[in-house]
Amino acid sequence: MRWLRTRTGLVERSTPVAPGSTFPVPESALPEPAHAALTAIVGEQHLLLDPAERLARAGGLSYLDLLRHRGSGELAVPDAVLLPADPDQVQRVVECCAEHGVGIVPFGGGTSVVGGVTALRGGCAAVVALDLVRLNRLVSVDPVSRLATFQAGVVAPEAERLLLPHELTIGHVPQSFERATLGGFAATRSSGQASAGYGRFEDMIEGVRLATPRGEWRLGVAPASAAGPDLRQLVVGSEGTFGVITEVTLRVRPRPSVRRYEGFVVDGWAAGAAAVRALAQARVLADVTRLSDPTETEMALSLSGGWKTAALRRYLRLRGIGEPCLLILGWEDTATDAVRARRAATLRALRGVRTVGLGRSVGEKWRAGRFSGPRQRDALMDQGVCVETLETATYWSSLDLLRDAVREALTSSLEVAGQVPVVACHISHAYETGASLYFTVIAPRSDEDPIGQWSAAKAAACAAIRPFGTITHHHAVGVDHAPYLGAEIGPLGVDVLRAVKEALDPNWVLNPGKLV
Amino acid sequence: MRWLRTRTGLVERSTPVAPGSTFPVPESALPEPAHAALTAIVGEQHLLLDPAERLARAGGLSYLDLLRHRGSGELAVPDAVLLPADPDQVQRVVECCAEHGVGIVPFGGGTSVVGGVTALRGGCAAVVALDLVRLNRLVSVDPVSRLATFQAGVVAPEAERLLLPHELTIGHVPQSFERATLGGFAATRSSGQASAGYGRFEDMIEGVRLATPRGEWRLGVAPASAAGPDLRQLVVGSEGTFGVITEVTLRVRPRPSVRRYEGFVVDGWAAGAAAVRALAQARVLADVTRLSDPTETEMALSLSGGWKTAALRRYLRLRGIGEPCLLILGWEDTATDAVRARRAATLRALRGVRTVGLGRSVGEKWRAGRFSGPRQRDALMDQGVCVETLETATYWSSLDLLRDAVREALTSSLEVAGQVPVVACHISHAYETGASLYFTVIAPRSDEDPIGQWSAAKAAACAAIRPFGTITHHHAVGVDHAPYLGAEIGPLGVDVLRAVKEALDPNWVLNPGKLV
Repeated sequence: MRWLRTRTGLVERSTPVAPGSTFPVPESALPEPAHAALTAIVGEQHLLLDPAERLARAGGLSYLDLLRHRGSGELAVPDAVLLPADPDQVQRVVECCAEHGVGIVPFGGGTSVVGGVTALRGGCAAVVALDLVRLNRLVSVDPVSRLATFQAGVVAPEAERLLLPHELTIGHVPQSFERATLGGFAATRSSGQASAGYGRFEDMIEGVRLATPRGEWRLGVAPASAAGPDLRQLVVGSEGTFGVITEVTLRVRPRPSVRRYEGFVVDGWAAGAAAVRALAQARVLADVTRLSDPTETEMALSLSGGWKTAALRRYLRLRGIGEPCLLILGWEDTATDAVRARRAATLRALRGVRTVGLGRSVGEKWRAGRFSGPRQRDALMDQGVCVETLETATYWSSLDLLRDAVREALTSSLEVAGQVPVVACHISHAYETGASLYFTVIAPRSDEDPIGQWSAAKAAACAAIRPFGTITHHHAVGVDHAPYLGAEIGPLGVDVLRAVKEALDPNWVLNPGKLV
Repeated sequence: MRWLRTRTGLVERSTPVAPGSTFPVPESALPEPAHAALTAIVGEQHLLLDPAERLARAGGLSYLDLLRHRGSGELAVPDAVLLPADPDQVQRVVECCAEHGVGIVPFGGGTSVVGGVTALRGGCAAVVALDLVRLNRLVSVDPVSRLATFQAGVVAPEAERLLLPHELTIGHVPQSFERATLGGFAATRSSGQASAGYGRFEDMIEGVRLATPRGEWRLGVAPASAAGPDLRQLVVGSEGTFGVITEVTLRVRPRPSVRRYEGFVVDGWAAGAAAVRALAQARVLADVTRLSDPTETEMALSLSGGWKTAALRRYLRLRGIGEPCLLILGWEDTATDAVRARRAATLRALRGVRTVGLGRSVGEKWRAGRFSGPRQRDALMDQGVCVETLETATYWSSLDLLRDAVREALTSSLEVAGQVPVVACHISHAYETGASLYFTVIAPRSDEDPIGQWSAAKAAACAAIRPFGTITHHHAVGVDHAPYLGAEIGPLGVDVLRAVKEALDPNWVLNPGKLV
């Protein structure tokens, strides 16, 4: 907090989260015939009308969602929560809701940061949260083909636990890991922190089972096919608007028994980005490859408290590092030899870059804290801070233009007299042709209109992204990015999505207001 | 031929290809208003009505197509051939054809083996072949991002020549390499012989420009995105039914300067498939990894003439190889060290498998002849042989079931008194979760009904494939696989494709009768 006060001009104040019971939760508008029909499918104890249960599924974990749960703006509360037992019940629920014109918000871990699970009604009479928590089974494992089929509601850590006896892993570790579900990963084209090693979630998806108002749809018969367009890739990223994903079949890998995470420091953003590009283009990326810009590096050093920052800075300056950029590299494999060989290949490709090794403790520290961002955000919000992240991706030749444009947009939008936002950035996903950029923004929160403050900053950032890259590399579209999708995929792209939607969900009951 | 006579009971006879001039080419049915409008767009000299020109675009290179060009069955001849100059002219041609209800068959290298360029009219008054031969430019190169944008009509060897000054390569080498175009690769989800190293064509596609009746559609702003479903993957594999691909932006790589191809022999199919699986799952596949089954190995040894087959067989038997399966491994890279390191990694993963090295000459021999299959087929067809290939893919645990089922189906269908077909098989594309199977069928050709003979065999093979894998791993759907697509992607999948088609091509003028 001391660092933040100095850096941003923040004046601390206590703004704790409001207890749920203080929120006015509207009566459920679920029409009686729909209520009766849905109860007949899932059973009375699995159709919840209790305000606390409904409030718990009122939105996800975006900064705006959190503000709403602190009393700013309005919460969209679902009219009921459904807890179907299995894919068959989901199928029947979907058909029943379509028949009764009731909107359905598929709900997994509820970790959307783009309004993907906001309980909007669209044109429907009511909307229900379809919580997939009971779809928690590992359906089958094919160790020869290295495939595992899971029900969609399995939470990521539980999926790994279920694979433990098979000595297999999925290897998908986004920051939402602790709470998010496999179905959610598929619905949102999620990408994990180890995407360089394990691939994005869409790279792992071999098959999918989808409950649509027009019946069940199963896809995936081979690792690759030329039998027309890859329709799995149309379901992946459809955010519950084409159907409810009830099962996913994933490529799995042997569970790594050896891990090595290390911290390095590179001199300046340009050198760091060039180094990551070199690794990606030589195809020797570490499984986790993450480069922080100078601001994020400063923040990491300052926030990590125990570090003797000034001493470290002196040490780095002596080693010729004027503008330290933290580079985390992590390798995982089934044998020490393999990790050693792959680490050697990575470091060989870094030979031309001035790096200073900070050792394994820094790498392990990053690894230990890698899911803690959301909790840190809650703590900061308690103190009157505006704190949010956003991300994008582009090709290497545009990366710096994109970073500059977004930093400039966020800074201009959030800067007020005496108060300067912190805009930190990192690369966490690198490809041969480009990389993602992930921004963390910290600023003193507006008292009068915190929602307007961030909405304006986000709009400025989105406008800055447009000429250079994608509106989202791994957070999905939801409500928050929907206004920007058309510019990215074109009016024909929007028409195509609408056409697919009409074909599968002619009554538009699936996740109203998201994506299309 | 001696081997074939012994093996199949073939009775040779001379059945040469018929000269084009002997074919009755129907008058062009292109309506005058369409003719005038199209002439205004492309210019008089680029709208061809000449029967020879139209005949040259009457179908592709499937066995059935070749039979038709030898006088069996009926040829579908386009009513005109259009040679637009650039993407803008293509766009105007597409809109003009939609307006006049004229069908459009996009035509690249004409190498489809599934009827993908058959000039069907569908519900249209006439159909034109839209030959992209003049779209032959390298539009731009971004060496930092390793991206190259090409016009769609660039033939693969020309694309490599155009990249030569940039010391870059695409690395896509299907058997159709010599004639096929980049647009065709994209339209058909092509996969090259070095797919293990360079990826399938869909893995290389970063952007696409599509001419649709409803306007131009451009996709691709970043290497990866979570902005909804990946619509690029909806265009890739759309076979000209959603639009005409006019430009592709591809990931490119440094041109390899060092190549090492080697032949090995493994004992038996099961051991060979297990070895390829081990390589794929350890992610140390050679860039080219190709395993022939015993029949294909026997054929390769017999057809390669110069080899002292009996001596080799004795030598292998002495080394403990009872049922030789040829394994071709090829590595390509920019430095000898890199090839050496990757080769070592591959061979290390093969330690548990009994292999006999046949040396580089066998590997280089395979490499030298790797595009010659189609010419060999022409020569065999001249001698009264039925010769065709088909391919599929599945997960590892079903691979042997699939191979057995297809071999059995083809053999039963083609076996007649005294005549036994040769059904050879290889794996040419391997993934962590499965592999492709590529079948070559050689049988004495039926005199009375050669088209019926193969159609029945193909239908039997497709029925055998259905329970286990995809109807096509890299040959696409076209006309020939269209009847089987519904079973693979389900009725909802067909509805989705039709909905996308309606959204982009409401008059159904694009490539009638293909895919959907």
